[in-house]
Order: sequence, then C-alpha cells, then structure tokens
Amino acid sequence: MINKLIEEIQKKNAPVVVGLDPMLSYIPEHITKKAYGEYGETLEGAAEAVWQYNKGIVDAVYDLIPAVKPQIAMYEQFGIEGLQAFKKTVDYCKEKGLVVIGDIKRGDIGTTSAAYATGHLGKVQVGDNKYSLFDEDFVTVNPYLGTDGIKPFIDVCKEEKKGIFVLVKTSNKSSGEFQDRLIDGRPLYEIVGEHVAKWGEEHMGNDYSYVGAVVGATYPEMGKVLRKIMPKSFILVPGYGAQGGKAEDLKPYFNEDGLGAIVNSSRGIIAAYKQEKYSSFGSENYADASRQAVIDMIEDINGAVGR
Amino acid sequence: MINKLIEEIQKKNAPVVVGLDPMLSYIPEHITKKAYGEYGETLEGAAEAVWQYNKGIVDAVYDLIPAVKPQIAMYEQFGIEGLQAFKKTVDYCKEKGLVVIGDIKRGDIGTTSAAYATGHLGKVQVGDNKYSLFDEDFVTVNPYLGTDGIKPFIDVCKEEKKGIFVLVKTSNKSSGEFQDRLIDGRPLYEIVGEHVAKWGEEHMGNDYSYVGAVVGATYPEMGKVLRKIMPKSFILVPGYGAQGGKAEDLKPYFNEDGLGAIVNSSRGIIAAYKQEKYSSFGSENYADASRQAVIDMIEDINGAVGR
Repeated sequence: MINKLIEEIQKKNAPVVVGLDPMLSYIPEHITKKAYGEYGETLEGAAEAVWQYNKGIVDAVYDLIPAVKPQIAMYEQFGIEGLQAFKKTVDYCKEKGLVVIGDIKRGDIGTTSAAYATGHLGKVQVGDNKYSLFDEDFVTVNPYLGTDGIKPFIDVCKEEKKGIFVLVKTSNKSSGEFQDRLIDGRPLYEIVGEHVAKWGEEHMGNDYSYVGAVVGATYPEMGKVLRKIMPKSFILVPGYGAQGGKAEDLKPYFNEDGLGAIVNSSRGIIAAYKQEKYSSFGSENYADASRQAVIDMIEDINGAVGR
Repeated sequence: MINKLIEEIQKKNAPVVVGLDPMLSYIPEHITKKAYGEYGETLEGAAEAVWQYNKGIVDAVYDLIPAVKPQIAMYEQFGIEGLQAFKKTVDYCKEKGLVVIGDIKRGDIGTTSAAYATGHLGKVQVGDNKYSLFDEDFVTVNPYLGTDGIKPFIDVCKEEKKGIFVLVKTSNKSSGEFQDRLIDGRPLYEIVGEHVAKWGEEHMGNDYSYVGAVVGATYPEMGKVLRKIMPKSFILVPGYGAQGGKAEDLKPYFNEDGLGAIVNSSRGIIAAYKQEKYSSFGSENYADASRQAVIDMIEDINGAVGR
C-alpha cells in the first residue's frame, strides 16, 4: 500500500492528502436541511449530513489527490451512527481509488493493540468466516506504550500489505510539553523517530517503509532533523493551512527524490467555501470551492518544495 | 462521579474494577453456539455472543464491585456490530449501578480531543437536540500530545461531572522505552504524573480529583513515587493477576486513607473458569467462576493493602 500511495502521488503529482474531518458547523445548510428533513434532527440525520457532505467533496476532488485522511473522532462524536458514516466514507473513497489513512491515533498493549489493528486494518475470525471491518489502508498510531503497542499493528500490516503512521512530533502548540523534553541531550521526538526507523526496517515497500511518521508542519526545524533520522519513513504532515504551517516550510520534510512526505489539509479544503478567498463559490457549490482549494494547495506545495 | 466511585468502593469494601475485555476464545461454547445459531457465524453473531457473555458476568458480580472497565478495542475489532455490543454493555452496567470506565486511550489535538470527549463522556448537539453517545462515566486518555489533548476532556468532564484516567506508566513490558527515559534526571512518567496532578487541581471532587492516572501494577516502585507526586489523583491500576502484578505490591498505590487506587483485573476474572483453580465450575457456570474470582481478588487485595 505504501507503493500504491507513492505511485498515486507521482501519477497525480500531488503529495497531498485531504482530511475528511467534518464538523456540523462546516456543512452547508442545503445538506443538513435535506438530511434532517429525511431523518429529523437525530444522530441518523447528522450522520447522513456528514456522509452527503463528504461524498460531495470526494466526488469533486478524487481525481486530483492520492489519498484522504478521515479523522475518526469527528464521526465517533455521533456514536454508532457517526461510525457508520465513517465506514461508508472509507468504502466510498476506496471505490474511487483513493488511499485511505484512518486518523485513529490508537495504541495500547499487546492483545489490545492487536484488536485495534484487526478492527482497522485486518480481518476478524468468527467461526469459519473472516470479516473486514473498518478496513482503512493506513492508520495513525500513538507510540507512548512502546514497541508492545506498535508491533501488533506491524504484524497485521505485513499480512495485509498495509501501513501505519506513528505520532512523532504533533502539530499542536502543547506538543512540546513531553515530546520536546531532552533525554541525554536529545528531544523525545527524536528518540521516537529512531524507533520508527527501526520498526520500519521490518516492513519495507520498494523504496519506503510501511511504517511512517506524523510530524507537524508547524515545526519545520524538527521536520528537517526527523527527515534524516527516518530516511525510509514516509512523513504524514498535518498542520498546513488552517493550523498555520506554510508551504515554504515544507521542503525539509521531503527527500531529494521529491518524495517522502504527504501534506494534509482538512478544514482548509473541506470548508474552503467559508474562506473569503473562495466565498464566490457559495455554499451550494462548496465542493467546487474544495476542488479549487486542492488545486491551489498542490500548486503551493509543489512550487515551494520544487517538485 | 469520582465521589460516586469512592462511595461505591467504600460501600462494597472493594477497590477493584472488572475489565470487560471479551475475546471470542474466552466465551463458553454454549453462548457462541446459541448466538451463531440465531445470527450465523457473522459479526452480528459475534457481537451477540460478546454481549451475552458480558451480561452473564455482570449479573454475577455487580453486587460485589464498584466499577467495570470495558476495553473498547475488544469491541472495535468487530466493527460497528462490536461497538453496538460495547454500547449495550455500558448501558447495562450503568443500569446495574456500576461506574463505567471506558478504556479507550484516546487523545488528539484540540477540537479532535473535544470530539472524542463528546462521543464518550458528553452530549452532541444536532439542530435543537442533544444526544448522549457512548456515555461512559470515566475514560482513559493518552497524554503524548500534551495539555491541548487533555484540556477538552476536562472541559466536558466539568460539565458532566465525569472524569478521566491519564496514562502515566503502563503495565506492559516495553512501557519503559519512552516512559522511563530520564529528563533532567527524572523519568518521563514522573513528568507526566506532575502534569496529571496539575490538571487535576482544576476539577476536584470532595477528596480526590476527577483527573486520575493509570499506573501498572507491574511497577510497584514507580507506583510508590507516583502516589506521592499525585496525592489527589485516583490511580487506576491494570496488570494485576494475568499480567503478573501481585497484591502485596499494591500497597504503595494507596493513600493512608485506604483509598486512592482501584485495581483492575480482566482475563483473571472474566475467563476465570479456564483457570485450574476455578475449573470445577465448568464452562456452563463461567459466571459463577467469575464471581468466586472477584471474591478472591477482593480478599487478596484488601488483605495485602491492610484495608
């Protein structure tokens, strides 16, 4: 799947991923109105609105991008109904040929991590039958519990030819509270990065590992160091756009082959129609605004990183 | 809810929590047979088996214990159907007067953590209506992203009078890879513990904070230090029993008031009938074996900690 991700990035000349992190406040009124009309102001209604909103965006941008990254929390907040919309979104994106990165940030000890890996990347055995569950292509994983928590994901990834992105340095303001603390003179995120590189050796694609890393766009100096520590790990870069990360800061996240990173934007794309820049599209044409925002983002990033 | 947890611990004289972490391999054949008979060897069948198994255990032990801790991964591995069984289990345990600690180990940045907090502890707004979702009383939270990731949980906890347990030192073997690394001469878990104490000041119950900590039973020396660093935080202690933690090691996790810790056992209770010690119950009476294992665990722990 890392090979497919790279192929799609090259084919579409777009090292970008669109974060499908729907909030009800982003969804245009014509969609919520229709969904509530059908299901009432219920969880089913909210889930239907989320799904229709996503579908509109995916239909408008799928030919431009290699991958999407649905953030499961935004669906989990609507309970079971929300998770059904998550699953529907994952399935639909895969039908459209997109690589799906489930932003789930799970992580636990042994058998428990194995259960998460099964639920999101693998297949569960029930009697004589096997079932795929949420079935993303990649998921994000939290490293705080160490190798015990990561290894079961890698085991499932090997079986399914899928991958993970391990949180190394996150894009938020307080990420430094623990991640930047010095251990023998070096920040924790570097130590985690070294582990990612080591874990990654176990499960290599052609040029890159199936074990990638999350490094926020908001910390380019750290991105530069981490790029060197994990030369074979793809870096998933959140924090571009709405969170403040700028394209000119993204060069260090890429290798000399022009690969090695994929930049995420969520709100900046899916709620583009709310920005002044794209307001002329109007909320009815929110998906066209998203398409234009994707085109602009690709140009911005390719320009800055010299791809 | 921390006050209720303490009241229930005192009333039942039992600082223990039963981990409802069902694996299909634990479930007695008479239950799976019936469930598969009704729904086939399907995800619905598996979810029904999990639910009936849980119900049997809860019915057998609810009068002995203050709380249960369902591990969501074990349900998530069966996808939507599994999460429906999770929700059913949470609701049923609450009906039985049990405090429910959702072992979800979520954690993300700002709005995303807020979405998880809403989904598990709060209420979501859809139009003019508000809905509770998974609706646990407490959840476990991962600290790797810092205060940004924790604060939204605390905000929801304040509104709902609910609580969290933050992972500080986990019970697994490789927990030391990052958690034990020295920062200015002190291990990371102590630094995290200090943050837990600080976060906890913000949201106090009568004697203890709504912000607790997870510290594994397998590391009693560390438990001792952490007890002092976080005097007002309740400690959720996994790792007793099947994972190797012993009762005599648990004393340092408690304060002099005999409170301050709640010890979890999962497999050791829910699959007790598979142990030689309880094998005479037979698989048909698995729930009675669980009841006896709970009685033994309470005696073991109260004896060792001198409650």
